Amino acid sequence: MPSIDVCFSPELLHLYDLKGKAVVAVDILRATSTMVTAFAEGAATIYPVMDLEECRNFAVNGCLTAAERNGIKAEGFDLGNSPFGYMDGKVKGREIAITTTNGTRAIRMSEAASEIVVGAFLNLQAVADHLESLGLDVLIVCAGWKGQFNLEDTLFAGALVERLQGKFSSENDSTLAALYLYQTAKADLLNFLRQSSHVRRLEHLEIHKDIEFCLRHDAYTTLPVWRKDRLVDLKS
Amino acid sequence: MPSIDVCFSPELLHLYDLKGKAVVAVDILRATSTMVTAFAEGAATIYPVMDLEECRNFAVNGCLTAAERNGIKAEGFDLGNSPFGYMDGKVKGREIAITTTNGTRAIRMSEAASEIVVGAFLNLQAVADHLESLGLDVLIVCAGWKGQFNLEDTLFAGALVERLQGKFSSENDSTLAALYLYQTAKADLLNFLRQSSHVRRLEHLEIHKDIEFCLRHDAYTTLPVWRKDRLVDLKS
Repeated sequence: MPSIDVCFSPELLHLYDLKGKAVVAVDILRATSTMVTAFAEGAATIYPVMDLEECRNFAVNGCLTAAERNGIKAEGFDLGNSPFGYMDGKVKGREIAITTTNGTRAIRMSEAASEIVVGAFLNLQAVADHLESLGLDVLIVCAGWKGQFNLEDTLFAGALVERLQGKFSSENDSTLAALYLYQTAKADLLNFLRQSSHVRRLEHLEIHKDIEFCLRHDAYTTLPVWRKDRLVDLKS
Repeated sequence: MPSIDVCFSPELLHLYDLKGKAVVAVDILRATSTMVTAFAEGAATIYPVMDLEECRNFAVNGCLTAAERNGIKAEGFDLGNSPFGYMDGKVKGREIAITTTNGTRAIRMSEAASEIVVGAFLNLQAVADHLESLGLDVLIVCAGWKGQFNLEDTLFAGALVERLQGKFSSENDSTLAALYLYQTAKADLLNFLRQSSHVRRLEHLEIHKDIEFCLRHDAYTTLPVWRKDRLVDLKS
Protein backbone atom coordinates (compact mmCIF):
# COMPACT_ATOMS: atom_id res chain seq x y z
CA MET A 1 0.00 0.00 0.00
CA PRO A 2 1.52 3.38 -0.90
CA SER A 3 1.98 5.91 1.88
CA ILE A 4 0.73 9.44 2.34
CA ASP A 5 2.64 12.06 4.30
CA VAL A 6 2.22 15.77 5.01
CA CYS A 7 4.96 18.41 5.00
CA PHE A 8 3.68 21.46 6.93
CA SER A 9 6.03 24.01 5.35
CA PRO A 10 8.43 24.39 2.41
CA GLU A 11 11.03 25.04 5.14
CA LEU A 12 10.77 21.35 6.09
CA LEU A 13 10.88 20.02 2.53
CA HIS A 14 14.60 19.20 2.67
CA LEU A 15 13.77 16.48 5.21
CA TYR A 16 11.82 14.53 2.59
CA ASP A 17 13.01 12.52 -0.38
CA LEU A 18 10.76 13.51 -3.28
CA LYS A 19 12.15 11.06 -5.81
CA GLY A 20 9.48 8.74 -7.17
CA LYS A 21 6.75 10.48 -5.18
CA ALA A 22 3.63 12.38 -6.14
CA VAL A 23 3.54 15.81 -4.52
CA VAL A 24 0.33 17.70 -3.92
CA ALA A 25 1.12 21.41 -3.63
CA VAL A 26 -1.41 23.32 -1.53
CA ASP A 27 -1.98 26.99 -0.85
CA ILE A 28 -5.67 27.21 -0.08
CA LEU A 29 -5.70 30.99 0.57
CA ARG A 30 -5.40 31.49 -2.31
CA ALA A 31 -2.78 30.47 -4.89
CA THR A 32 -3.76 26.88 -5.61
CA SER A 33 -7.49 27.59 -5.28
CA THR A 34 -7.05 30.35 -7.85
CA MET A 35 -5.02 28.14 -10.22
CA VAL A 36 -7.69 25.44 -10.07
CA THR A 37 -10.34 28.07 -10.81
CA ALA A 38 -8.31 29.52 -13.69
CA PHE A 39 -8.16 26.13 -15.41
CA ALA A 40 -11.85 25.54 -14.73
CA GLU A 41 -12.44 28.86 -16.49
CA GLY A 42 -10.52 27.66 -19.54
CA ALA A 43 -6.94 28.89 -18.98
CA ALA A 44 -4.55 27.04 -21.34
CA THR A 45 -1.34 27.09 -19.26
CA ILE A 46 -0.06 28.52 -16.01
CA TYR A 47 3.60 29.39 -15.42
CA PRO A 48 4.22 29.62 -11.66
CA VAL A 49 7.29 31.84 -11.32
CA MET A 50 9.33 32.88 -8.31
CA ASP A 51 9.63 36.66 -8.59
CA LEU A 52 7.82 39.74 -9.84
CA GLU A 53 10.44 40.64 -12.44
CA GLU A 54 10.39 37.21 -14.07
CA CYS A 55 6.60 37.27 -14.03
CA ARG A 56 6.46 40.68 -15.71
CA ASN A 57 8.71 39.43 -18.53
CA PHE A 58 6.11 36.88 -19.55
CA ALA A 59 3.88 39.71 -20.79
CA VAL A 60 6.01 40.11 -23.94
CA ASN A 61 4.94 36.62 -25.01
CA GLY A 62 1.27 37.55 -24.78
CA CYS A 63 0.81 35.97 -21.36
CA LEU A 64 -1.53 37.42 -18.81
CA THR A 65 0.50 38.23 -15.69
CA ALA A 66 -0.69 37.69 -12.15
CA ALA A 67 1.07 38.72 -8.95
CA GLU A 68 0.26 38.82 -5.27
CA ARG A 69 2.44 40.00 -2.41
CA ASN A 70 1.30 40.00 1.23
CA GLY A 71 -2.26 39.22 0.27
CA ILE A 72 -2.82 41.99 -2.28
CA LYS A 73 -2.45 42.34 -6.05
CA ALA A 74 0.93 43.75 -7.04
CA GLU A 75 0.88 46.91 -9.12
CA GLY A 76 1.20 46.69 -12.90
CA PHE A 77 -0.09 43.15 -13.29
CA ASP A 78 -3.21 41.95 -15.13
CA LEU A 79 -4.51 39.77 -12.33
CA GLY A 80 -4.24 39.32 -8.57
CA ASN A 81 -4.77 36.24 -6.45
CA SER A 82 -8.55 36.20 -6.12
CA PRO A 83 -10.32 33.34 -7.91
CA PHE A 84 -13.14 35.74 -8.82
CA GLY A 85 -10.67 37.76 -10.90
CA TYR A 86 -10.27 34.78 -13.23
CA MET A 87 -13.94 34.37 -14.08
CA ASP A 88 -16.25 35.83 -16.76
CA GLY A 89 -14.17 34.66 -19.69
CA LYS A 90 -11.10 36.71 -18.71
CA VAL A 91 -8.66 33.79 -18.90
CA LYS A 92 -10.31 31.48 -21.46
CA GLY A 93 -7.66 30.05 -23.79
CA ARG A 94 -4.97 32.30 -22.29
CA GLU A 95 -1.53 31.56 -20.89
CA ILE A 96 -0.91 33.02 -17.44
CA ALA A 97 2.31 33.69 -15.55
CA ILE A 98 1.66 33.86 -11.81
CA THR A 99 3.76 34.63 -8.76
CA THR A 100 2.48 34.51 -5.17
CA THR A 101 4.04 34.77 -1.72
CA ASN A 102 3.85 31.12 -0.70
CA GLY A 103 2.09 28.91 -3.24
CA THR A 104 4.50 29.28 -6.15
CA ARG A 105 7.36 28.31 -3.87
CA ALA A 106 5.68 25.05 -2.79
CA ILE A 107 5.32 24.05 -6.44
CA ARG A 108 8.78 25.04 -7.65
CA MET A 109 10.56 23.50 -4.65
CA SER A 110 8.93 20.14 -5.43
CA GLU A 111 10.38 19.70 -8.91
CA ALA A 112 12.32 16.57 -7.91
CA ALA A 113 9.04 14.65 -7.52
CA SER A 114 7.70 12.30 -10.22
CA GLU A 115 4.43 14.20 -10.35
CA ILE A 116 3.26 17.53 -8.94
CA VAL A 117 -0.47 18.06 -8.62
CA VAL A 118 -2.05 21.36 -7.63
CA GLY A 119 -4.60 20.72 -4.90
CA ALA A 120 -7.42 22.74 -3.36
CA PHE A 121 -10.73 21.97 -1.71
CA LEU A 122 -12.23 23.02 -5.06
CA ASN A 123 -10.76 19.97 -6.85
CA LEU A 124 -10.35 17.63 -3.87
CA GLN A 125 -11.92 14.51 -5.36
CA ALA A 126 -10.17 14.97 -8.72
CA VAL A 127 -6.84 15.04 -6.86
CA ALA A 128 -7.78 12.00 -4.75
CA ASP A 129 -8.77 9.99 -7.84
CA HIS A 130 -5.57 10.92 -9.67
CA LEU A 131 -3.38 9.93 -6.71
CA GLU A 132 -5.17 6.62 -6.44
CA SER A 133 -4.63 5.88 -10.12
CA LEU A 134 -0.94 6.83 -9.91
CA GLY A 135 -0.31 4.51 -6.96
CA LEU A 136 2.84 6.43 -5.93
CA ASP A 137 3.76 7.44 -2.38
CA VAL A 138 2.26 10.85 -1.78
CA LEU A 139 3.62 13.95 -0.05
CA ILE A 140 1.24 16.85 0.53
CA VAL A 141 3.32 20.04 0.60
CA CYS A 142 1.58 22.84 2.48
CA ALA A 143 2.67 26.29 1.34
CA GLY A 144 2.17 27.68 4.84
CA TRP A 145 2.47 31.39 5.57
CA LYS A 146 6.00 32.76 5.14
CA GLY A 147 7.40 29.38 6.06
CA GLN A 148 5.17 28.84 9.07
CA PHE A 149 2.50 26.21 9.63
CA ASN A 150 -1.00 27.30 8.68
CA LEU A 151 -4.39 25.80 9.40
CA GLU A 152 -6.15 26.04 6.04
CA ASP A 153 -3.48 24.09 4.15
CA THR A 154 -3.35 21.53 6.96
CA LEU A 155 -7.14 21.12 6.88
CA PHE A 156 -6.96 20.47 3.14
CA ALA A 157 -4.28 17.84 3.80
CA GLY A 158 -6.59 16.22 6.36
CA ALA A 159 -9.48 16.23 3.90
CA LEU A 160 -7.37 14.54 1.24
CA VAL A 161 -6.08 11.96 3.73
CA GLU A 162 -9.69 11.22 4.73
CA ARG A 163 -10.68 10.64 1.09
CA LEU A 164 -7.76 8.23 0.67
CA GLN A 165 -8.17 6.27 3.91
CA GLY A 166 -7.87 2.53 3.38
CA LYS A 167 -6.03 3.10 0.10
CA PHE A 168 -2.87 4.72 1.46
CA SER A 169 -1.06 4.09 4.74
CA SER A 170 -1.16 7.20 6.89
CA GLU A 171 0.42 6.58 10.26
CA ASN A 172 3.02 9.30 10.44
CA ASP A 173 2.48 12.10 12.91
CA SER A 174 1.83 15.02 10.60
CA THR A 175 -0.71 13.01 8.61
CA LEU A 176 -2.56 11.94 11.76
CA ALA A 177 -2.57 15.53 13.03
CA ALA A 178 -3.97 16.86 9.74
CA LEU A 179 -6.67 14.19 9.68
CA TYR A 180 -7.77 14.86 13.27
CA LEU A 181 -7.83 18.60 12.74
CA TYR A 182 -9.97 18.19 9.63
CA GLN A 183 -12.37 15.87 11.43
CA THR A 184 -12.68 18.40 14.25
CA ALA A 185 -13.22 21.30 11.85
CA LYS A 186 -15.15 19.95 8.90
CA ALA A 187 -18.66 20.58 10.19
CA ASP A 188 -17.92 24.31 9.93
CA LEU A 189 -14.55 25.00 8.34
CA LEU A 190 -15.13 28.72 8.04
CA ASN A 191 -15.87 29.30 11.71
CA PHE A 192 -13.03 27.02 12.72
CA LEU A 193 -10.62 29.09 10.63
CA ARG A 194 -11.97 32.37 11.97
CA GLN A 195 -10.22 31.71 15.29
CA SER A 196 -6.95 32.06 13.44
CA SER A 197 -5.36 35.51 13.54
CA HIS A 198 -3.80 34.71 10.16
CA VAL A 199 -7.22 34.13 8.58
CA ARG A 200 -8.67 37.18 10.32
CA ARG A 201 -5.81 39.22 8.86
CA LEU A 202 -6.80 37.96 5.41
CA GLU A 203 -10.45 38.80 6.11
CA HIS A 204 -9.41 42.39 6.77
CA LEU A 205 -8.22 42.52 3.18
CA GLU A 206 -11.87 42.16 2.22
CA ILE A 207 -11.46 38.73 0.78
CA HIS A 208 -14.18 37.19 2.91
CA LYS A 209 -16.03 36.04 -0.23
CA ASP A 210 -12.80 34.48 -1.50
CA ILE A 211 -12.29 32.53 1.72
CA GLU A 212 -15.80 31.07 1.59
CA PHE A 213 -15.28 30.15 -2.05
CA CYS A 214 -11.88 28.52 -1.44
CA LEU A 215 -13.40 26.21 1.20
CA ARG A 216 -15.99 24.73 -1.18
CA HIS A 217 -15.36 21.03 -1.74
CA ASP A 218 -15.38 19.49 -5.23
CA ALA A 219 -16.63 22.50 -7.17
CA TYR A 220 -14.41 21.52 -10.13
CA THR A 221 -12.90 18.44 -11.73
CA THR A 222 -9.87 20.46 -12.88
CA LEU A 223 -6.53 18.71 -12.36
CA PRO A 224 -3.50 21.00 -12.77
CA VAL A 225 -0.24 19.06 -13.02
CA TRP A 226 3.36 20.18 -13.56
CA ARG A 227 4.85 19.37 -16.97
CA LYS A 228 8.48 20.43 -17.45
CA ASP A 229 8.15 24.18 -16.82
CA ARG A 230 4.40 24.84 -16.58
CA LEU A 231 1.07 23.68 -15.22
CA VAL A 232 -1.47 22.13 -17.56
CA ASP A 233 -4.92 20.77 -16.85
CA LEU A 234 -4.96 16.99 -17.15
CA LYS A 235 -8.74 16.99 -17.35
CA SER A 236 -9.09 19.42 -20.24
CA MET B 1 -1.60 40.25 27.24
CA PRO B 2 1.57 38.31 26.32
CA SER B 3 1.33 35.83 23.45
CA ILE B 4 2.02 32.13 23.22
CA ASP B 5 3.21 30.46 20.04
CA VAL B 6 4.34 26.97 19.06
CA CYS B 7 7.28 26.07 16.82
CA PHE B 8 6.79 22.49 15.58
CA SER B 9 10.44 21.79 14.79
CA PRO B 10 13.93 23.21 15.40
CA GLU B 11 14.09 23.40 11.58
CA LEU B 12 11.52 26.23 11.74
CA LEU B 13 13.19 28.09 14.60
CA HIS B 14 14.93 30.60 12.31
CA LEU B 15 11.49 32.01 11.46
CA TYR B 16 11.00 33.22 15.03
CA ASP B 17 12.61 36.09 16.89
CA LEU B 18 13.59 34.69 20.30
CA LYS B 19 14.83 37.96 21.80
CA GLY B 20 12.93 38.88 24.94
CA LYS B 21 10.91 35.66 24.84
CA ALA B 22 10.55 32.72 27.18
CA VAL B 23 11.18 29.44 25.35
CA VAL B 24 9.79 26.13 26.57
CA ALA B 25 11.90 23.32 25.13
CA VAL B 26 10.01 20.04 24.79
CA ASP B 27 11.02 16.51 23.92
CA ILE B 28 8.42 14.36 25.62
CA LEU B 29 9.86 11.01 24.44
CA ARG B 30 12.11 11.31 26.29
CA ALA B 31 14.81 13.95 26.77
CA THR B 32 12.92 16.66 28.62
CA SER B 33 10.81 14.16 30.60
CA THR B 34 14.06 12.54 31.71
CA MET B 35 15.68 15.86 32.63
CA VAL B 36 12.67 16.81 34.74
CA THR B 37 12.84 13.42 36.44
CA ALA B 38 16.60 13.75 37.05
CA PHE B 39 16.10 17.04 38.90
CA ALA B 40 13.17 15.58 40.84
CA GLU B 41 15.56 12.82 41.88
CA GLY B 42 18.06 15.36 43.16
CA ALA B 43 20.45 15.98 40.26
CA ALA B 44 22.46 19.19 40.87
CA THR B 45 23.08 20.32 37.29
CA ILE B 46 22.51 19.10 33.75
CA TYR B 47 24.74 20.05 30.83
CA PRO B 48 22.86 19.43 27.57
CA VAL B 49 25.58 18.99 24.95
CA MET B 50 25.39 18.51 21.20
CA ASP B 51 27.62 15.51 20.49
CA LEU B 52 28.84 12.25 21.97
CA GLU B 53 32.49 13.27 22.08
CA GLU B 54 31.80 16.48 24.01
CA CYS B 55 29.54 14.56 26.36
CA ARG B 56 32.20 11.92 27.02
CA ASN B 57 34.72 14.62 27.95
CA PHE B 58 32.56 15.73 30.88
CA ALA B 59 33.40 12.45 32.66
CA VAL B 60 36.86 13.77 33.58
CA ASN B 61 35.18 16.43 35.75
CA GLY B 62 33.30 13.79 37.71
CA CYS B 63 30.07 14.23 35.78
CA LEU B 64 27.79 11.36 35.05
CA THR B 65 27.42 11.06 31.26
CA ALA B 66 24.19 10.25 29.46
CA ALA B 67 23.72 9.61 25.76
CA GLU B 68 20.99 8.40 23.49
CA ARG B 69 21.05 7.92 19.73
CA ASN B 70 18.05 6.66 17.73
CA GLY B 71 16.14 5.77 20.87
CA ILE B 72 18.79 3.62 22.58
CA LYS B 73 21.58 4.24 25.11
CA ALA B 74 24.91 4.92 23.44
CA GLU B 75 27.76 2.62 24.39
CA GLY B 76 30.24 3.68 27.07
CA PHE B 77 27.96 6.14 28.88
CA ASP B 78 26.67 5.97 32.46
CA LEU B 79 23.04 6.66 31.63
CA GLY B 80 20.60 6.46 28.72
CA ASN B 81 17.44 8.39 28.06
CA SER B 82 14.95 6.48 30.23
CA PRO B 83 13.61 8.40 33.24
CA PHE B 84 13.68 5.15 35.23
CA GLY B 85 17.47 5.05 34.84
CA TYR B 86 17.70 8.24 36.91
CA MET B 87 15.85 6.94 39.95
CA ASP B 88 16.87 5.07 43.13
CA GLY B 89 19.40 7.67 44.24
CA LYS B 90 21.63 7.25 41.17
CA VAL B 91 21.77 10.96 40.34
CA LYS B 92 21.28 12.59 43.74
CA GLY B 93 23.63 15.57 44.09
CA ARG B 94 25.40 14.70 40.83
CA GLU B 95 26.21 16.75 37.76
CA ILE B 96 25.11 15.12 34.50
CA ALA B 97 26.18 15.79 30.91
CA ILE B 98 23.51 14.60 28.49
CA THR B 99 23.21 14.38 24.72
CA THR B 100 20.13 13.14 22.87
CA THR B 101 19.00 13.02 19.23
CA ASN B 102 16.45 15.82 19.32
CA GLY B 103 15.92 17.34 22.74
CA THR B 104 19.37 18.76 23.35
CA ARG B 105 19.17 20.55 20.03
CA ALA B 106 15.90 22.27 20.90
CA ILE B 107 17.48 23.68 24.06
CA ARG B 108 20.81 24.78 22.60
CA MET B 109 19.23 26.38 19.51
CA SER B 110 17.10 28.58 21.79
CA GLU B 111 19.96 30.34 23.57
CA ALA B 112 18.95 33.77 22.19
CA ALA B 113 15.79 33.70 24.35
CA SER B 114 15.52 35.57 27.68
CA GLU B 115 14.59 32.37 29.48
CA ILE B 116 14.63 28.70 28.52
CA VAL B 117 12.46 26.35 30.53
CA VAL B 118 12.51 22.58 30.13
CA GLY B 119 8.94 21.34 29.85
CA ALA B 120 7.27 17.95 30.07
CA PHE B 121 3.85 16.65 31.08
CA LEU B 122 5.60 15.67 34.32
CA ASN B 123 6.11 19.33 35.32
CA LEU B 124 3.31 20.94 33.28
CA GLN B 125 1.80 23.11 36.01
CA ALA B 126 5.18 24.23 37.33
CA VAL B 127 6.05 25.44 33.81
CA ALA B 128 2.65 27.16 33.41
CA ASP B 129 3.03 28.97 36.76
CA HIS B 130 6.55 30.10 35.91
CA LEU B 131 5.51 31.46 32.50
CA GLU B 132 2.64 33.33 34.08
CA SER B 133 4.92 34.93 36.64
CA LEU B 134 7.48 35.91 33.97
CA GLY B 135 4.85 37.60 31.81
CA LEU B 136 7.03 37.33 28.66
CA ASP B 137 5.83 36.25 25.23
CA VAL B 138 6.23 32.48 25.07
CA LEU B 139 7.47 30.20 22.31
CA ILE B 140 7.11 26.46 22.82
CA VAL B 141 9.87 24.74 20.84
CA CYS B 142 9.02 21.15 19.97
CA ALA B 143 12.08 18.97 19.47
CA GLY B 144 10.26 16.84 16.91
CA TRP B 145 11.79 13.72 15.44
CA LYS B 146 14.84 14.36 13.26
CA GLY B 147 13.45 17.75 12.35
CA GLN B 148 9.94 16.52 11.61
CA PHE B 149 6.70 17.33 13.38
CA ASN B 150 5.73 14.87 16.09
CA LEU B 151 2.51 14.34 17.96
CA GLU B 152 3.70 13.93 21.54
CA ASP B 153 5.54 17.27 21.68
CA THR B 154 2.59 18.96 19.98
CA LEU B 155 0.16 17.47 22.51
CA PHE B 156 2.31 18.83 25.34
CA ALA B 157 2.21 22.27 23.66
CA GLY B 158 -1.60 22.00 23.52
CA ALA B 159 -1.76 21.04 27.18
CA LEU B 160 0.35 24.03 28.16
CA VAL B 161 -1.72 26.38 25.99
CA GLU B 162 -4.87 25.03 27.66
CA ARG B 163 -3.43 25.75 31.12
CA LEU B 164 -2.59 29.31 30.05
CA GLN B 165 -5.86 30.14 28.28
CA GLY B 166 -7.17 33.56 29.21
CA LYS B 167 -3.72 34.64 30.40
CA PHE B 168 -1.90 34.55 27.06
CA SER B 169 -3.21 35.33 23.58
CA SER B 170 -3.08 32.22 21.44
CA GLU B 171 -4.57 32.85 18.01
CA ASN B 172 -1.80 31.78 15.72
CA ASP B 173 -2.32 28.68 13.66
CA SER B 174 0.19 26.31 15.25
CA THR B 175 -1.06 27.18 18.75
CA LEU B 176 -4.68 26.55 17.75
CA ALA B 177 -3.72 23.26 16.10
CA ALA B 178 -1.84 22.08 19.19
CA LEU B 179 -4.72 23.03 21.47
CA TYR B 180 -7.33 21.23 19.33
CA LEU B 181 -5.20 18.12 19.05
CA TYR B 182 -4.71 18.02 22.81
CA GLN B 183 -8.43 18.47 23.43
CA THR B 184 -9.16 15.61 21.02
CA ALA B 185 -6.54 13.36 22.59
CA LYS B 186 -6.50 14.12 26.29
CA ALA B 187 -9.11 11.60 27.43
CA ASP B 188 -6.66 8.86 26.45
CA LEU B 189 -3.30 10.24 25.35
CA LEU B 190 -1.64 6.85 25.23
CA ASN B 191 -4.11 5.28 22.83
CA PHE B 192 -4.16 8.41 20.72
CA LEU B 193 -0.39 8.25 20.37
CA ARG B 194 -0.43 4.54 19.56
CA GLN B 195 -1.80 5.31 16.10
CA SER B 196 1.50 6.98 15.34
CA SER B 197 4.08 4.79 13.60
CA HIS B 198 6.76 6.89 15.30
CA VAL B 199 5.42 6.02 18.77
CA ARG B 200 4.96 2.38 17.79
CA ARG B 201 8.59 2.33 16.68
CA LEU B 202 9.58 3.58 20.13
CA GLU B 203 7.36 0.97 21.75
CA HIS B 204 9.31 -1.71 19.89
CA LEU B 205 12.37 -0.52 21.80
CA GLU B 206 10.62 -1.81 24.91
CA ILE B 207 10.08 1.57 26.41
CA HIS B 208 6.36 1.12 26.82
CA LYS B 209 6.66 1.79 30.57
CA ASP B 210 8.63 4.96 29.77
CA ILE B 211 5.94 6.24 27.41
CA GLU B 212 3.20 5.77 30.02
CA PHE B 213 5.37 7.52 32.60
CA CYS B 214 6.21 10.46 30.32
CA LEU B 215 2.51 11.16 29.73
CA ARG B 216 1.74 11.62 33.46
CA HIS B 217 0.66 15.17 34.18
CA ASP B 218 2.08 17.15 37.11
CA ALA B 219 4.03 14.37 38.78
CA TYR B 220 6.76 16.85 39.80
CA THR B 221 7.17 20.53 40.63
CA THR B 222 10.70 20.52 39.20
CA LEU B 223 11.51 23.55 37.02
CA PRO B 224 14.71 23.16 34.99
CA VAL B 225 15.88 26.46 33.48
CA TRP B 226 18.91 27.39 31.39
CA ARG B 227 21.57 29.46 33.16
CA LYS B 228 24.57 30.46 31.05
CA ASP B 229 25.80 26.98 30.03
CA ARG B 230 23.74 24.55 32.08
CA LEU B 231 20.33 23.61 33.41
CA VAL B 232 19.52 24.12 37.07
CA ASP B 233 16.33 23.46 38.99
CA LEU B 234 14.63 26.70 39.99
CA LYS B 235 12.48 24.87 42.51
CA SER B 236 15.29 23.23 44.48
